[in-house]
Amino acid sequence: MDKVIARIRENADKHREELRELLRIPSISADPERKGDVEKTAQWLLKRLQGLGISSEIVPTAGHPIVYGEHLHAEGAPTILVYGHYDVQPVDPLELWDSPPFEPTERDGQIVARGASDDKGQLLIHLLAVEAFLQERGELPVNLKIVFEGEEEVGSPNLPPFIEENREKLACDAVLVSDTSFFAKGMPSILYGLRGLAYVEVILRGPNRDLHSGEFGGAVANPADVLARMIAALHDEDRRVAVPGFYDEVRELSDGERETFASLPHDENDYRADLEVEALEGEKGFSTLERLWARPTLEVNGMVSGFTGEGAKTVLPAEASCKISCRLVPNQDPEQIETLLEARLRELCPPSVTMEFVRHHGGGPFLAEPDNPYVEKAKEALEEAFGEKAVLVRGGGSVPITGVFTDQLGAPCVLMGFGLPDDRLHSPNEKMDWDQFHRGIEASARFMQEVTKI
Amino acid sequence: MDKVIARIRENADKHREELRELLRIPSISADPERKGDVEKTAQWLLKRLQGLGISSEIVPTAGHPIVYGEHLHAEGAPTILVYGHYDVQPVDPLELWDSPPFEPTERDGQIVARGASDDKGQLLIHLLAVEAFLQERGELPVNLKIVFEGEEEVGSPNLPPFIEENREKLACDAVLVSDTSFFAKGMPSILYGLRGLAYVEVILRGPNRDLHSGEFGGAVANPADVLARMIAALHDEDRRVAVPGFYDEVRELSDGERETFASLPHDENDYRADLEVEALEGEKGFSTLERLWARPTLEVNGMVSGFTGEGAKTVLPAEASCKISCRLVPNQDPEQIETLLEARLRELCPPSVTMEFVRHHGGGPFLAEPDNPYVEKAKEALEEAFGEKAVLVRGGGSVPITGVFTDQLGAPCVLMGFGLPDDRLHSPNEKMDWDQFHRGIEASARFMQEVTKI
Repeated sequence: MDKVIARIRENADKHREELRELLRIPSISADPERKGDVEKTAQWLLKRLQGLGISSEIVPTAGHPIVYGEHLHAEGAPTILVYGHYDVQPVDPLELWDSPPFEPTERDGQIVARGASDDKGQLLIHLLAVEAFLQERGELPVNLKIVFEGEEEVGSPNLPPFIEENREKLACDAVLVSDTSFFAKGMPSILYGLRGLAYVEVILRGPNRDLHSGEFGGAVANPADVLARMIAALHDEDRRVAVPGFYDEVRELSDGERETFASLPHDENDYRADLEVEALEGEKGFSTLERLWARPTLEVNGMVSGFTGEGAKTVLPAEASCKISCRLVPNQDPEQIETLLEARLRELCPPSVTMEFVRHHGGGPFLAEPDNPYVEKAKEALEEAFGEKAVLVRGGGSVPITGVFTDQLGAPCVLMGFGLPDDRLHSPNEKMDWDQFHRGIEASARFMQEVTKI
Repeated sequence: MDKVIARIRENADKHREELRELLRIPSISADPERKGDVEKTAQWLLKRLQGLGISSEIVPTAGHPIVYGEHLHAEGAPTILVYGHYDVQPVDPLELWDSPPFEPTERDGQIVARGASDDKGQLLIHLLAVEAFLQERGELPVNLKIVFEGEEEVGSPNLPPFIEENREKLACDAVLVSDTSFFAKGMPSILYGLRGLAYVEVILRGPNRDLHSGEFGGAVANPADVLARMIAALHDEDRRVAVPGFYDEVRELSDGERETFASLPHDENDYRADLEVEALEGEKGFSTLERLWARPTLEVNGMVSGFTGEGAKTVLPAEASCKISCRLVPNQDPEQIETLLEARLRELCPPSVTMEFVRHHGGGPFLAEPDNPYVEKAKEALEEAFGEKAVLVRGGGSVPITGVFTDQLGAPCVLMGFGLPDDRLHSPNEKMDWDQFHRGIEASARFMQEVTKI
């Protein structure tokens, strides 16, 4: 293993140059005008994989293509599927960038460019680890499957069908996903849990037209007011979600998890100061990290009714609507939660208005068992590569594709991310620390070696 | 008096032609491109008044001009100030008009055109009544002052200062306002009460930026949710406004008023059917007419927060705002109500968000004593002219200028309107019934004659 690590270190300059090359292609998946650039990035990856002797192909989809590769010559060894995405977020507002987003720029040991951390830098890490093995040994310690998609930033519409249709081809022992961050600098982290999502829209309709508040005010229900009442009734005084059955399937935090969360460096004052709020607010009886990572929520994402322009207009709105989403935790099911929510809202809705309930996209929560052997090996690999104790953490967001991998392939997802919390994902001046990048390659290589011992 | 009435009837054709002429001028006060037409209408009225021998002038304002006239030769007789407005509402949506809005069109005994009922037809009624006296007798039974404004449809911004600055010039015994409607066809009505208005805007600010609902959901207050809670807390279960002190100054309905309201033809089923709602909603213990005319309200006129576009966006909004207005009844004071409302909202606002409270325009409620002699004479005049019993009713809307007249001139306002409930004010195909117009002229003349007996 030492030789592989030595080779990785020798090639540091080359590795950096390669990332810069990849970052120069503006593969913004949301921008139809960049379709050619997204395709070009897929071709770049295909050529690179084929150059390593990995059997690869471009899989066309209704949207942007998937790059698939496999190298299955390690008989008896586990099969690892590496997932990453080569598309990037849009760059607006462009004027807030200190250097052009697709001209990778060095700054204090960091590389600044759109996609540096999310996810081109992290995706390339695995490719370079694989290269080191092949150069040094001519073979890989594991059987490798690679799925690089080009639509993660637009919701991965075509990846789930691809996985479903190719369950046998993609069969593996673990899915390695590197699209997350350390909890803090110097604190390598494995995410073993993510929240799911249920997203709905509620439209209340009252009178058949906007009414004059003088001519009608006081005699008819006002949908804006009714909506406010209904939203208010969805939480109790302890900020628990007041939807019957909402918590029934919630997996409670273990004492061990609570202790781990409590031991993490998290300063409430810094957190408040960053958001510029006087006070935080959340479910009674839980810490901020617990609320973010292990407790479900119900939030208004938007609402609108009546007159919202400048000044005053004495109108009684005919309609009011809002978007509500729930972040879900294991073992809540998005569809079931939507059903419970609809039932509660219908109960709250008075006969004076009618309610339309629209279900938007959702996704299940994700939880790997913290003692899963692949998770443990990832932890060890991180600790060796970074020389710091690694921690098991959870995240508040959703990576719906993790649930699809787990459900369809029956394999655990290992979320070993190499970003840092200040990488400015989706924002101007996105960056990756070179140190994270280089050590990430070592961690990836060590992971592939370590899992052969399972 | 019979001769005056006879002359009015003889001139019916001329009267109709005159209204058509006035309606052809598109005096839309809200449309800067119609400024010339508004001015042209003022000139038309000036010329017409001067032609009658009424001493008249155009009073320029920061906006559209006021036409002022006076004829003060009836020594010992009361002085009546006639108020009307010669500007009209915009005509959008134009495609819903069956005939061009400024080409007056006959239809089943009605004249269809913008301004037919609101307020050119009603304003002209008084001018034609005055003409009949002057033609028949060479003099008027009363001293007459006339104020025709051109900005009623844009909130009369320049009329209150004009009244304040000309209190002596405008001094009178009663103000006659014809800008309202019969309660029903065949039921001549005097409005003796109107509601006032307090209008505010509430802006809640939470975190300093929109947040990702996964990364932050559950740990910080969501201003949209807080706003919904605050709005919901502003009513109790009986739909009474839950703002301490809100009802302190409310003048309760007398038994007589309740009986009168109850005797009016009002069908709840028709009312619901017109609005297409399954159920009405309002303050417990009051009928629909009582709620509309004599009870104060608190309504959301508009609210907005976060993502309101198509589809789903998992954002926690940084801000939420709403517009709230209260319809007020005697003796509530707009400023005091705004102060009480602000106090209650500040009490409801948690430390996790900050609140900005903006006061928009307001206006006091209006109530004439039902037994005021000028009101009684108006009732008699209506009954004689229309041959039907007249009723005293109240209205739910606000005519802020009535409060200004009452406060500044110390004279009662008599709201003797000649419109009908189906006149489609502010809507396409506005109309006035010719019968209302012709009999209105007789009623105006009879009123001027009758008040000399007070």
